[in-house]
Amino acid sequence: MRDIQNEEDTREIPLQKVGVKNVKYPVQVLDKNKKTQNTTATVNLFVNLPHNFKGTHMSRFIEVFHKYHTDISMNSFLEMLEEMGTKLDAERAFGRITFPYYIEKNAPVSGAPGIMEYTCTYEGEVTMQNKGEVSPSLQPAAQSSATPSNGPQTPARNARFFISIKVPIATLCPCSKAISEYGAHNQRGYVKVKMLYSDFFWIEDVIKMIEDCASTPLYSVLKRQDEKYVTEHAYENPRFVEDMVRDVYLGLKNMNFQWFTVEAETEESIHNHNAYACAEFSQSENPAIKNAE
Amino acid sequence: MRDIQNEEDTREIPLQKVGVKNVKYPVQVLDKNKKTQNTTATVNLFVNLPHNFKGTHMSRFIEVFHKYHTDISMNSFLEMLEEMGTKLDAERAFGRITFPYYIEKNAPVSGAPGIMEYTCTYEGEVTMQNKGEVSPSLQPAAQSSATPSNGPQTPARNARFFISIKVPIATLCPCSKAISEYGAHNQRGYVKVKMLYSDFFWIEDVIKMIEDCASTPLYSVLKRQDEKYVTEHAYENPRFVEDMVRDVYLGLKNMNFQWFTVEAETEESIHNHNAYACAEFSQSENPAIKNAE
Amino acid sequence: MRDIQNEEDTREIPLQKVGVKNVKYPVQVLDKNKKTQNTTATVNLFVNLPHNFKGTHMSRFIEVFHKYHTDISMNSFLEMLEEMGTKLDAERAFGRITFPYYIEKNAPVSGAPGIMEYTCTYEGEVTMQNKGEVSPSLQPAAQSSATPSNGPQTPARNARFFISIKVPIATLCPCSKAISEYGAHNQRGYVKVKMLYSDFFWIEDVIKMIEDCASTPLYSVLKRQDEKYVTEHAYENPRFVEDMVRDVYLGLKNMNFQWFTVEAETEESIHNHNAYACAEFSQSENPAIKNAE
Amino acid sequence: MRDIQNEEDTREIPLQKVGVKNVKYPVQVLDKNKKTQNTTATVNLFVNLPHNFKGTHMSRFIEVFHKYHTDISMNSFLEMLEEMGTKLDAERAFGRITFPYYIEKNAPVSGAPGIMEYTCTYEGEVTMQNKGEVSPSLQPAAQSSATPSNGPQTPARNARFFISIKVPIATLCPCSKAISEYGAHNQRGYVKVKMLYSDFFWIEDVIKMIEDCASTPLYSVLKRQDEKYVTEHAYENPRFVEDMVRDVYLGLKNMNFQWFTVEAETEESIHNHNAYACAEFSQSENPAIKNAE
Repeated sequence: MRDIQNEEDTREIPLQKVGVKNVKYPVQVLDKNKKTQNTTATVNLFVNLPHNFKGTHMSRFIEVFHKYHTDISMNSFLEMLEEMGTKLDAERAFGRITFPYYIEKNAPVSGAPGIMEYTCTYEGEVTMQNKGEVSPSLQPAAQSSATPSNGPQTPARNARFFISIKVPIATLCPCSKAISEYGAHNQRGYVKVKMLYSDFFWIEDVIKMIEDCASTPLYSVLKRQDEKYVTEHAYENPRFVEDMVRDVYLGLKNMNFQWFTVEAETEESIHNHNAYACAEFSQSENPAIKNAE
Repeated sequence: MRDIQNEEDTREIPLQKVGVKNVKYPVQVLDKNKKTQNTTATVNLFVNLPHNFKGTHMSRFIEVFHKYHTDISMNSFLEMLEEMGTKLDAERAFGRITFPYYIEKNAPVSGAPGIMEYTCTYEGEVTMQNKGEVSPSLQPAAQSSATPSNGPQTPARNARFFISIKVPIATLCPCSKAISEYGAHNQRGYVKVKMLYSDFFWIEDVIKMIEDCASTPLYSVLKRQDEKYVTEHAYENPRFVEDMVRDVYLGLKNMNFQWFTVEAETEESIHNHNAYACAEFSQSENPAIKNAE
Repeated sequence: MRDIQNEEDTREIPLQKVGVKNVKYPVQVLDKNKKTQNTTATVNLFVNLPHNFKGTHMSRFIEVFHKYHTDISMNSFLEMLEEMGTKLDAERAFGRITFPYYIEKNAPVSGAPGIMEYTCTYEGEVTMQNKGEVSPSLQPAAQSSATPSNGPQTPARNARFFISIKVPIATLCPCSKAISEYGAHNQRGYVKVKMLYSDFFWIEDVIKMIEDCASTPLYSVLKRQDEKYVTEHAYENPRFVEDMVRDVYLGLKNMNFQWFTVEAETEESIHNHNAYACAEFSQSENPAIKNAE
Repeated sequence: MRDIQNEEDTREIPLQKVGVKNVKYPVQVLDKNKKTQNTTATVNLFVNLPHNFKGTHMSRFIEVFHKYHTDISMNSFLEMLEEMGTKLDAERAFGRITFPYYIEKNAPVSGAPGIMEYTCTYEGEVTMQNKGEVSPSLQPAAQSSATPSNGPQTPARNARFFISIKVPIATLCPCSKAISEYGAHNQRGYVKVKMLYSDFFWIEDVIKMIEDCASTPLYSVLKRQDEKYVTEHAYENPRFVEDMVRDVYLGLKNMNFQWFTVEAETEESIHNHNAYACAEFSQSENPAIKNAE
């Protein structure tokens, strides 16, 4: 049967990425408290396509991902990309999966239990060193690793891995509080961080740090004593969207991430539009990527 | 050329609706202050299909709408549906268009000008009386009418017309205010009303009434003196989502609508989910439609 | 601490529904092949509010749902609503959860395995008979039941339960095929069915029936021999959106559902808008609900 | 009244961007055939914030945009950003507006008229040279310009302007056609291009070029003779998503754009996921931005 994709292309245009988008799959990821968590992902998978080939073979992306979907750790995610690059005879392989991540959180006074949803993204890029064989240097430490070790950046220059986490929070406006006789407008918002992976960390710890920076964290269940606590706590901790970004920036720096971006966006309760701020940090002088907003 | 749609179907299943969805078109609608307003609409158009026909003729929906898109008043909308029903030789014609509607609104203290966006929907259903000729009784009064008159419901039982308006507002929680030493959680939300059209009214008047029911209306531009006013005004006017529905319900009843629904939904600033309430009013004993939520 | 929600309201307006929307929770549902399936849900929960109460107690909705989220069968869903109505001292309780549901499906020729995503919704309404005690008549058979039995409609007039399933499919246009020398436009679309629950059934069986009505089912993985098969199969089975609705209608009638709606919508490949059709079936003369489109 | 935003911040963290997102405004843009077009925009506006200030003044963004919303040419868009930067005493100002753009297009055989919607984005960045005074070198040629001239890049290194256009198209799969006895799967998709602005061009011309690269353009209204033509035309012009990117790439290069990205994504009619490809072109050796996907 004819294989048009494999035929020669003469337009001399290499494609940076070609592949599949918006694939929906159940996945199993790591969980600090419960070891593993079942959730549902939206998946994008790509490879580069050299100028001389007409097309890629789309079915192979899903075939490789299907093998890995029941164990998506940070570690196995890069392995999966490496295998995808090999199967498609590519020089580079890219992947991004986004999934809701659930953490049980008790109300601050009553202790009533509830579950919060956060949105996580794993994004990776692998440059194949010798097409066809798995690189021995591709050994990033990851959540699956019992003994934390160094990440992909230092030992293996052939892979980069980013983790994004979106955390819903509330902010109370310092200006509104300062100029008003009583009250202060406050609102739901979110902080989104994206970190270049190098050393082992738990998603749960980053979320906790971000929630501690907010006027108040959010909860699924709040009884009246909790609502009083949360209301007063927010009033005592006013935060601009700019403050959210700066405090989370300091938090991530303290956690020793080498490169990250922080974004905050709040659904202003007095406007029908949002307030937004972002910052980027890079240990090295040539920032890898500017990707906020 | 063969016309399969027109061929006979033997499955004996009439279809309630068949047509086109998600058509994007520029439209011109009426405006209380500026006479007309240019905006952009998402359009759904349907007719019924008797059991003995295989299919409808999709191109005719757009052909008829194209004729009317530069003048979408409440009046011409029903005319358009009547013409669509005629062209498609149908017994019933349905249409729904949703569009952003813009109103200039000044800040409450400084008077700084800005524009607010509201979402409006026109939804109509016309039952054809004599297929092929336009019913003389289809004469609803509408925004285009210089002299308001009676609407479609009484004189012409062959048409029903609904108008929905979604208004962004803010609510400040009465419970949070009552139990806390200081502050109170507040948030953006919206009120959505859907009214059966009978007598002439201006969209602007319904929006004004709804905004007056909120803890505070929203604005595009607020200088510091405005922010102080709005913050204090909200603190003085706490509203549950239930209060929003009940106050707007009274407002619409006072405006003499014969049938309506009111929904309110608020993006709770202390949770990552929303609070919701709805109510329906019907002058007659057999409510036409339950359509909230 | 003051309980404002419990205070008296004098506006004399009962609310049909009040509660929480857009709650995100992990859930466990039943699965024909694997017994249970972990997935992620969006949850809306409401009760009615009598005219004389100021507000409902929002935290109780989540507290009750939290108890049940690890076992959402059709059966336990109504139990959950009954408990919610009791805890909130309401006359009626409503709930709707929507979740992706995954089924492994092999390619039609090569047998290559892949997973397909479908969207399911459980929607229930329970009328409390004696506030505070669980009705013994509330015993719908459900997917959890080993021995299928009669559903909620007949023995217990106090509960109604609906299941919706959205199935992606492809249609190839009969008109385009008939009038063209070669080729025919085809496209992705979906069929959405909503059934009133009465007797036990598997979601998997409804999905299979719907996919068999399409020009071709969709697959996650298709090798070249599969692509050839699927292309030719679609060309041999042209379907209008009207045909999809009518064939699925016959299929659901054969499965003995007492009330249902069928909708089909296709992302026409020659237009930037969609084609749509819907039909409703009711065994009784007073159709319960018109809810399509 | 206290101005907290203006107070000093000691965390020593500059913010790349701070401002407003998701502002909804009516706008007037240029139109090749009708001179101007009224449409509706979603607007994001930002400036940088030096490390020593606590916050920005959000109301000023909307105040400046309000002045310009009735005349958004490529030219005035940069002027608006320059004024925004000045009013906010910033070093850099950023803006992005996205709006539907409508073009009347006749059916290919019958000539039946209809309107197509495309999505356009203007994105600009202005670096202020002397805070407080408008730079005389900021004179990009733009659609408003009667005599096309050189753009912002060469004479004024202080501004960059990007235009994105998203065009819905259809592709027919070359592989499916080659391996099947009859038929070929085809589907709706879109091509999105983003160009660095330098010389004057009309959006309409880029759209025409992109539609000519597709298996077939899309239309709002197609009569049967048009449907036959479009079906056969698509069958005669099979295109992979990779082909779409490469042909549009050549088209943009021929139009002399100095930097651009091309993305194509198709809603595969045999899968429930999409196929995707992208490429980037840069005349200079240091590509400005990698922003596809």
